[in-house]
Amino acid sequence: MAHAGCPLCESAGGEIVFAGDALRVVRTDEGGFPAFYRVIWNRHVAELSDLSRQERALCLDAVIVVEQALRFRLHPTKVNIASLGNLVPHLHWHVIARFDWDSHFPAPVWSGPQRHAPQAELARVMALRSLLQADTARELSSLVAAGSRS
Amino acid sequence: MAHAGCPLCESAGGEIVFAGDALRVVRTDEGGFPAFYRVIWNRHVAELSDLSRQERALCLDAVIVVEQALRFRLHPTKVNIASLGNLVPHLHWHVIARFDWDSHFPAPVWSGPQRHAPQAELARVMALRSLLQADTARELSSLVAAGSRS
Repeated sequence: MAHAGCPLCESAGGEIVFAGDALRVVRTDEGGFPAFYRVIWNRHVAELSDLSRQERALCLDAVIVVEQALRFRLHPTKVNIASLGNLVPHLHWHVIARFDWDSHFPAPVWSGPQRHAPQAELARVMALRSLLQADTARELSSLVAAGSRS
Repeated sequence: MAHAGCPLCESAGGEIVFAGDALRVVRTDEGGFPAFYRVIWNRHVAELSDLSRQERALCLDAVIVVEQALRFRLHPTKVNIASLGNLVPHLHWHVIARFDWDSHFPAPVWSGPQRHAPQAELARVMALRSLLQADTARELSSLVAAGSRS
């Protein structure tokens, strides 16, 4: 049920971390935010409340898996979660590790930058991405397998 | 378990729409966004994944109740949902009705304004708030009552 012209129907939307039947997780390159992930519902729906209760629970469980991987591996100052979709009304959650040294902190990533992020800190986070992405893929595979058994 | 200095421990955080044991819903006055609500978890926790699975489900059910009331009464162009908390790390969800005429659309509310929102549109939304807030309070009362019976 791809929606013509929708970038999240017509492309992955980032580097695939996990691809399931109902949803996928991708990493996106957003300058200055080295751990910026998206949980994308595969079917084209606009709002969270367009999902059934069971689908919603799965979608939010996936958000939590990403959040927990970010917390465990990166110890961010804060995790930011958002489902906006004004430009791309195809349900997707931004899940972003925020650090007190990042370019916009404490402002949202959608506001203006306040500083340059230190290269050493960016490199430290980037070096840990493969671990947190492996955690995410493993946990989501378990979650989906458990869901299909229930 | 109030956290000293936390504005969401020390004050309601807006006009109360619903006040329960675990969470509350408030309306906040954010210029140009006439239907800007927050679901605030009463206990001071920073991240969604600090909640138990059952608490998380209740918190997200409350977000959905607000989203559905916004959709039913206002027919917004999009609903925006976000849990950021960089400045106030006390778990709260912004649930915001967005309109193609609003001051920032399609950009996030945290970016810069693009226009002045038309007064007539703002007034139309403001006139519907009492209805959607009554919907929200009624649905959340039912949800909490159902939860305490289960």
